[in-house]
Amino acid sequence: MRETDLKTLKEMFRRAPFIADLGMELQSLAPGDCVTTLAIEPRHLQQHGFVHAGVLATLADHTAGAAAFMLVSSGSSVLTAEFKLSLLRPARGERLRCQAKVIKPGRRFSFAESEVFCESEGEERLVAKASATMVVVMPGDE
Amino acid sequence: MRETDLKTLKEMFRRAPFIADLGMELQSLAPGDCVTTLAIEPRHLQQHGFVHAGVLATLADHTAGAAAFMLVSSGSSVLTAEFKLSLLRPARGERLRCQAKVIKPGRRFSFAESEVFCESEGEERLVAKASATMVVVMPGDE
Amino acid sequence: MRETDLKTLKEMFRRAPFIADLGMELQSLAPGDCVTTLAIEPRHLQQHGFVHAGVLATLADHTAGAAAFMLVSSGSSVLTAEFKLSLLRPARGERLRCQAKVIKPGRRFSFAESEVFCESEGEERLVAKASATMVVVMPGDE
Amino acid sequence: MRETDLKTLKEMFRRAPFIADLGMELQSLAPGDCVTTLAIEPRHLQQHGFVHAGVLATLADHTAGAAAFMLVSSGSSVLTAEFKLSLLRPARGERLRCQAKVIKPGRRFSFAESEVFCESEGEERLVAKASATMVVVMPGDE
Repeated sequence: MRETDLKTLKEMFRRAPFIADLGMELQSLAPGDCVTTLAIEPRHLQQHGFVHAGVLATLADHTAGAAAFMLVSSGSSVLTAEFKLSLLRPARGERLRCQAKVIKPGRRFSFAESEVFCESEGEERLVAKASATMVVVMPGDE
Repeated sequence: MRETDLKTLKEMFRRAPFIADLGMELQSLAPGDCVTTLAIEPRHLQQHGFVHAGVLATLADHTAGAAAFMLVSSGSSVLTAEFKLSLLRPARGERLRCQAKVIKPGRRFSFAESEVFCESEGEERLVAKASATMVVVMPGDE
Repeated sequence: MRETDLKTLKEMFRRAPFIADLGMELQSLAPGDCVTTLAIEPRHLQQHGFVHAGVLATLADHTAGAAAFMLVSSGSSVLTAEFKLSLLRPARGERLRCQAKVIKPGRRFSFAESEVFCESEGEERLVAKASATMVVVMPGDE
Repeated sequence: MRETDLKTLKEMFRRAPFIADLGMELQSLAPGDCVTTLAIEPRHLQQHGFVHAGVLATLADHTAGAAAFMLVSSGSSVLTAEFKLSLLRPARGERLRCQAKVIKPGRRFSFAESEVFCESEGEERLVAKASATMVVVMPGDE
């Protein structure tokens, strides 16, 4: 793993105001893999008491981006071109855990997937799944 | 338009903590149509200074849900089954405006689309577009 | 497994003209799982000599539908509401194999995924991946 | 419009075996826009007598690709990275017409949308809608 980029990535989480504000935390990183968590608070919910799809989307997208970033060459970064999120079950519980992996890295764009699990009373269930297309932005690209 | 449900919908925005916390505002409503806005604040940004994709996803999803809700029979509600968000341009500016419309209503599920525009120095640009499948939840469905 | 429905499903493949015309074959079935194959012919290709994305989409969709069908109650059927297909690599070779599984079955709709592999000179590579929302159509639904 | 590329595109339709075999025809072209049609034949149907989703996906994808191709610089081509297809209504009738437009062109990738209409007894209805991410492949890219 690239030490410098690992630092960059941890910085990316701290320096991304929406991620910091939401309370998302980086748990682990490896080339093409990333795990994040979020302690569910009342402010994350929608009108029926479940975690809002927008919170799940944020976790899915940002974690996938971090997983993809770990595979690009030094100096490059990644941007999401698009993602699709399927909402498998209502998310109610104490904690979300998102696990992302790159299913096909590429020089110009990468495909990644994220699974979001919700932990409730010690049990984890898959609540959402996303697939994303990440564009590699090389130095010099605007 | 169903007066009771219009009230319900305005309530839905106020009572959805994540929507209220984010600062999303309901601007207008009609059967199958909804417009919302968000005044962009530093806490909505990602590490490069653009609005985070998760914020755009939240607007796109919630506004589409409200547009779909306006077309279901009284007592029913809607849940997002899935949505796809395409990120057309980086979003940088003062305000987001999201315009959602139902492109095919149905008794059991509806298809909706959302366009998210970013206003910067008086000019608006389309920054993201979403397509969503919304499930109609009838009274008695769990 | 429901014997009657297994017969129904094999019939579905024979009686679906586009599937029969394309040359798609049912290999195996289990509740929530389905495997199909296609012997690649020149007529399946696009202008660069790769299998056309439309062929991959057909396999991904139809195989996912069969997997979902195996989990609905007798007399019900399934319809695709939407699917997304990611094209990971150009598909060039002798044979396609598609493996679909239901990742979340439901009474009213199910989520399924399909992976399409391309076999070339004895080696198989993942060339496309799809995620689909399948609607359960019960007897009496129009 | 680039005359040479217009010829190239017409050639692309003739030289794409799956497109020719399916019976898809190029109707009109402009930068970022493309219209195609397909005379529905029994071999295009699924088991319930509707046009198979795979046929709709092929039209949606190929027409979007042609629309995107019209905007790239000479010598470059386009490849589909991913597309999502929403199936709004069962397609039954005499003819399909697909209208694609690029909603955001780019130097490295473009976003396009396709609408598929089905004509039955002189009336046209929107039966499917797709959104696609198209990658621009420049000379020298592998």
